[in-house]
Parts: sequence; C-alpha cells; structure tokens
Amino acid sequence: MTTVDVAAHLRTMRTQVPLVQCITNTVVQQFSANVLLAAGASPAMLDHEADAAQFARIADGILVNFGTATSHQLLAADAATAAAEQSGTPWVLDPVSYGGVEHRTVHIRRLAHSGPTCIRGNASEIAALAGAGAGGRGIESTDEVDAVLDHAVRLAEVTGAIVAVSGARDAIVTTDPDAPGRARIARVGGGSALMPLTVGTGCSLAALTAAYLGTRRTPAAEARHDRFAAVVAAHAHFAATGERAARTAEGPGSFAVAFLDALHAVAEDDLTAVDVTVDDVTVDPVERTRR
Amino acid sequence: MTTVDVAAHLRTMRTQVPLVQCITNTVVQQFSANVLLAAGASPAMLDHEADAAQFARIADGILVNFGTATSHQLLAADAATAAAEQSGTPWVLDPVSYGGVEHRTVHIRRLAHSGPTCIRGNASEIAALAGAGAGGRGIESTDEVDAVLDHAVRLAEVTGAIVAVSGARDAIVTTDPDAPGRARIARVGGGSALMPLTVGTGCSLAALTAAYLGTRRTPAAEARHDRFAAVVAAHAHFAATGERAARTAEGPGSFAVAFLDALHAVAEDDLTAVDVTVDDVTVDPVERTRR
Amino acid sequence: MTTVDVAAHLRTMRTQVPLVQCITNTVVQQFSANVLLAAGASPAMLDHEADAAQFARIADGILVNFGTATSHQLLAADAATAAAEQSGTPWVLDPVSYGGVEHRTVHIRRLAHSGPTCIRGNASEIAALAGAGAGGRGIESTDEVDAVLDHAVRLAEVTGAIVAVSGARDAIVTTDPDAPGRARIARVGGGSALMPLTVGTGCSLAALTAAYLGTRRTPAAEARHDRFAAVVAAHAHFAATGERAARTAEGPGSFAVAFLDALHAVAEDDLTAVDVTVDDVTVDPVERTRR
Repeated sequence: MTTVDVAAHLRTMRTQVPLVQCITNTVVQQFSANVLLAAGASPAMLDHEADAAQFARIADGILVNFGTATSHQLLAADAATAAAEQSGTPWVLDPVSYGGVEHRTVHIRRLAHSGPTCIRGNASEIAALAGAGAGGRGIESTDEVDAVLDHAVRLAEVTGAIVAVSGARDAIVTTDPDAPGRARIARVGGGSALMPLTVGTGCSLAALTAAYLGTRRTPAAEARHDRFAAVVAAHAHFAATGERAARTAEGPGSFAVAFLDALHAVAEDDLTAVDVTVDDVTVDPVERTRR
Repeated sequence: MTTVDVAAHLRTMRTQVPLVQCITNTVVQQFSANVLLAAGASPAMLDHEADAAQFARIADGILVNFGTATSHQLLAADAATAAAEQSGTPWVLDPVSYGGVEHRTVHIRRLAHSGPTCIRGNASEIAALAGAGAGGRGIESTDEVDAVLDHAVRLAEVTGAIVAVSGARDAIVTTDPDAPGRARIARVGGGSALMPLTVGTGCSLAALTAAYLGTRRTPAAEARHDRFAAVVAAHAHFAATGERAARTAEGPGSFAVAFLDALHAVAEDDLTAVDVTVDDVTVDPVERTRR
Repeated sequence: MTTVDVAAHLRTMRTQVPLVQCITNTVVQQFSANVLLAAGASPAMLDHEADAAQFARIADGILVNFGTATSHQLLAADAATAAAEQSGTPWVLDPVSYGGVEHRTVHIRRLAHSGPTCIRGNASEIAALAGAGAGGRGIESTDEVDAVLDHAVRLAEVTGAIVAVSGARDAIVTTDPDAPGRARIARVGGGSALMPLTVGTGCSLAALTAAYLGTRRTPAAEARHDRFAAVVAAHAHFAATGERAARTAEGPGSFAVAFLDALHAVAEDDLTAVDVTVDDVTVDPVERTRR
C-alpha cells in the first residue's frame, strides 16, 4: 500500500498560493472563487476567448466546467487548454451534467480526450463519460461511487487522466500506459451529507484540485505519482472541511458559510486525520480507443 | 371559501424532488439554485439555446427571468417554452424590472402572452405588465399589492396565467375563461422586511413556484385548481421561511443564510400555520385583448 | 487640513437610496448587489448593450468593471458611459486585473481616458494604469498603497478622475487642472485582513462609491470637493464595516455574512470614528498626455 502525505501537499499549496484560471459556470463562480481564496489559492475567473490563452500561460492550474456553456467559454476552454498543453500546465475537466443533453456533452467529450490532467465528476457523469449510463439529469448524482469504479478505471486508461469520482467515499484513480492491467485507487472518506445541498461544492472541489495540481513539489521523475497525490490531497482538504463545517451547521445555508471558514481553518493534522487509503490493484485492461 | 392543503403540497414536492430548469439572471443564479436545493427541489441552470429545448423536455418545471437578458438566454427561453407547450410542462415567467427599459420589456411582454402557467412579480411589474403604471426602476417595488389587485386579475384574464404579486401580503390570482367575471384570489401573509434587502428573494420564489408547479399530484380534471394551489403552497413555503429566518437574523447577511437553513427546516405544520386565505370574488370582466 | 463630514454623506445616501447601474463581472454580481442593498442603495445589474444607455439615463451612478468582459458588457459600458457623459451622471471605473492580460487592458485603458468620475483599484492596478508596473496576476494586489501614491496622483492628473487606491490604508487622490502641482489626498484606515479573502470586496467598494457619488448633496459650485468627499465617505463606510465584521467573524465565510450585516448596521457615529485624514500636498506636475 502506498501513502500520500496530504499534510505536506496542504503546506506547500498554502505557501505557493497557486493561481487558478477558472473557466466555469456562472452559477458557481462566486463560491468557487471564495473556496480557492479560503483554502489558500488565488482565483482568476477569466473565461473569454480573447485572453484565455494568454492568461493560461501565467496560471499555475486551469479548471474547465461547462455548466453554463456559452460560446465565449467554449472558445476560451479550447484556447486555454491548448496553451496549457504547450506549457505543461495541469488542467482539470469537470464534466458537469455530462450525458444529460447533447450540446455540452459534445464539448465535454472532446475535451476529455484532449489531455486533461484530471477529470473530476460524480458517479453518473464518470460512468456516462466512460461510455456507460445515461448521465445525470442535473447536478445530482444517481449512481454510487463503488458501482462506477470500473468505469473510472476505463476512463483513466482511455484518456490518460487521473479520474476522481465524488460521492460518500470519493475515489481517485490513475493508470499507467507502461503498466497495463494495473490501477492505483485512492479512497477518501469524510465530507458531509449537507454538501450536495450547497450548489458548487463539486465544482469548487474541481477548482481546488487544479490548485493542488498547480503546486510544484517534486522533480519531474516523480510527476505521475505526485499529481495523483495532489488530487488526493485536494479531496482530503475537502473531506476534512466538510466534516468540520457539519459540526456547527444548522442547515444548508450555515453549512456553506461554515465550509468557507473551515477551508481556511483546517490544519495539517486535520488532513492527516482524514480516512485515506491507496491501493494498487489489478484490472481488466481495455483496448485504448480513439474518440 | 376554498382552502389549500399547503402541507400536502410541501410533502409531495419534497418526495418528488422536481427538476427545475432556470433561465434566470446571472446575479441570482447561485442563490436560486441554493433555494431550490434547500427547499427540496433539484435545480438546473441551463440557459443556452443549444440545449434549452432538449432539457425542457426532461424538466418538471421551467423558470424564465430576463434580469440580465443576453442573446443566448432570450433564445433559450423561446426554445424551452415552446418545448414546454408541447409537453405540457408548467413554466413561470418572472417579469423582473418590466417597464423599466425597452429591451427586456419587449421580450417579457411577448412571453407573457405565450402561455405561461404563472407570472410572478412585484406590484410595479404586474401593474405595468397589465398595462398600467410605468414599471419599476430596478428590482424594488414601488406599488403596494392591494393597489394593483385589479391589474393582476386583468393580467390573469388576458394571459390565462395564474398571477402572483409579491409584497407584504402576497396575492395569487386565477381566472377561468369558462367563468368570466369571477376570480379566485389567495392572500398569503408572513415573510420578513429583510427579504427585499437580499438580492434574489423574489427571483428564487419564482423558481420555487416552478418547482411546486412541477410536482404531479392530481388527475388532470383537477389541474386548474391544483396548479393554483401549488403556487399558493410555494408562497406559503417562502412566508414560513422568511418568518423563521427573521427570528435569528442580525441583518441582511445573516438573514440570507438563515433563510436557506429555514427553507430546509420548515415542516408541514409551519406551512399550515401561515396566514392563507382564498376567496372567490366577482370582478369586472375585461375584454380579452390580443397582444 | 480639510475634513470630510462622512456621517452627513451616509445619512444623505440612505435617504436618497441612489440607483446604481452595475456593469460588472459575473463573479461578484450577487455580492455587489447585496452590498448596495445592505448599505442603503438600490442595485441594477443591467449589462447588455440593448438597454444600457437607456438605463444609464435614469441611474444615479454607474459602475464599470471588466472582470469577465464579454462583448455585451464591453458594448454596454460604451453606451452607458456615453449616456452618462451627456447627463452628467457620475461613473466609476474599476480596472480589475489591469495589465495582467491584453484583452481587458485595452478596454480599461480606453475607458480610463473617457472621463470617469472615479477610478478605484488596488495598488498594482493603479500603478499599471498610470504607466508603471506590470499589473496584477489576478485579483490580488502586490504593491502597497504608499508605494504607488505618486502614480495615483499622476493618474488623477492625466484622466481628471478621482483616484482611489485600496489597501491596508486606502488613499483617495484628486487634482485640479486649475491648480497644477497640487493634490488633495485622503487616507482612510480600518477594514480587515479578512477582506481580501472574500471575492468582490474591492469590486463592491467600487459599486458603493458609485452610490455615494450618485447622491446629490450640494450646489454645483462645490461639485469638485463634494465628489471627492463622497468617495472618501464610501471608503469610510467600508472601513467601519470591515472592522465591525471582523469582530465576530470566525473565517472568510462568516466574515462575508457579518460584512453585509455590518454594512446595514453601521451608524453615523461609526463612520465618524473611522481614521480619515485629508491633506493638500505639493506634487511634481506631470505633462498632461493624451492617450
């Protein structure tokens, strides 16, 4: 079993204050920016094609979420992710509502196969993106994490991305083209049942994942494991935050407030206390398909 | 006098978790989504013409609010309401700032005469939409509910919509083309003076009304009364919530937080305790005009 | 030394409830509207070119902020500020992230030289707009207020605007074309270190400044000093609010909530207690350049 030093990732993230470019839906822009600020990162919500590529070259991490996909956001995402590919900047795809309706589905699918560092969604979205299931109706998830684990592994194999599935117990999956038939799977427990009652908790977890991925920690040789660990640390930060916020919340309104307080307040010990397991497992290899 | 079993409507809404498509202004998207989640419904803020019609066919209710009317929202509203007409899906028009400036006024007027299930606005907006008054300057209302009741009845007659007027004591009005000269008027007391100090309370009441209208309860034969009752129940939910939130709020900031907590916490008894009256009254019939 | 009767400005603003048209980024629209409502003003977030000019003619003050600059916002700002010039309506430019990327920089620079009543930004933005420094990477400021004071004076001279620099101790600068080599500089202490951890505090201070500028107080003969005093009063309102909110906040989430409560609760005495100094100083005159 492998371990992840989530406390070290938190410390480095807060020290470096990574700049995260968020091309994300207008519903959650404010909450996502506040999540990044409270956690210790720096948000920039530039989502216009006219400056997306230029900004992507100075950003440390990038988030793409097509929850309210206007033309300028679609073009901005193309420009920013192309720039990110050239500069090696990590970027996260949040396939919000993938499979529900055609418009965004087309663009999400295309981006999923354009080299994202991480794809983070709920169980329905991940299953649909992997080619199974019909996707969600809206922002809620109707499948459980355990039930879609095989799909997550398959999605990691065909896209090369780290795949994170949010749910009662999150799963983070990575595979290695040089080791077919093997996958590394982290599980992160915690959080709160109130999280799905606040809009933007999933979307902002994707933003925070971009922040952790944008933190430079290790020599290039360790990059693959390090990026996986960064995604796990982001999820541990959220899990510790959700548990702490739930202790004082009296409902979804006060939970959202306590959540921002807790994102800022959680310390390295809190992240270390999160229930995180990492296992290397054998999986049925899939034929790598082209989109 | 007729009564409305608001508690039963609340119970059914929370059981069914209706999916509400919100084409609404970007200022209140986050708050409206949180209102729907806290109340027990499921929000989807899709507002692009490319998928609005497709999503409308799976939504249970639809909200249209042109507070920040971009081209894609105007086109999305046309597509979604046309799809709703075919499928019989209820939709709510919030004529925010009707009459203030020309651009949105043209589009609101057109939609008001395109078969909305309900039109919900403040007194200024309803009066202006009925052809009287100049409309509001912004989001505030300058007319009282009582003073515009006749206009609300007239608007209900010429549009066929249930008309809801928000104020210190809300009014919900419906008329029946088979019974000219008669109107059913519900009055709902409660709420809080802090509600106008939080942006989006009116807009999100319209969203919640779409949720209640999207709850399927009764055989089609009762549809007319049932939809009226659903609108009344949504307003009772808000009134009970506003009163509860005001008890602990120390200002507009903590009121908004307590409001989301209370939306989630209010029980059937709380709704039953709201001051709701329903009366059938005689009104001067107006000639049904074409727009 | 000159003094500013900030309490009188607060009282008049709350009595008149100025209507503020905000063409501002979608990230902070909700928070900015809530700030205006809580403080005592009336927000209208109209940002479409189709009605921006028409609304500008009934607005008391206008804010332009290109944080998420779409085509319709750029066109709306041109239309609204042109209408404002004709009607003499004061308008505030918030040069958010000026200098960071080219797209918004071009449009901000053009507007800065189109006659804004006030330009309000952080130290990095003001320095960059005055022609020094590289601007910020995102919403954070990397220069201190004291270090950019000369740049603020220069910017006031070349644009004719009152220039406000936000920081630990805000500076508000004005110059007079009839008195070259002289500048009036106010400093406003207070606020809270939690303010930069809440997205939109700077942007909404610019909105509140438009509200204070939109308050009609004095005969035209005093207009120049009166507008300067209005900007100072808006900053004093924010400073008093930040201090009060920080007393009960447990982190950035509860700070934002307490901030809205405090905006509403602060009284004239609280504003009078803010550390405000105003000095007339000699500065090196700069050659007035054309853009």
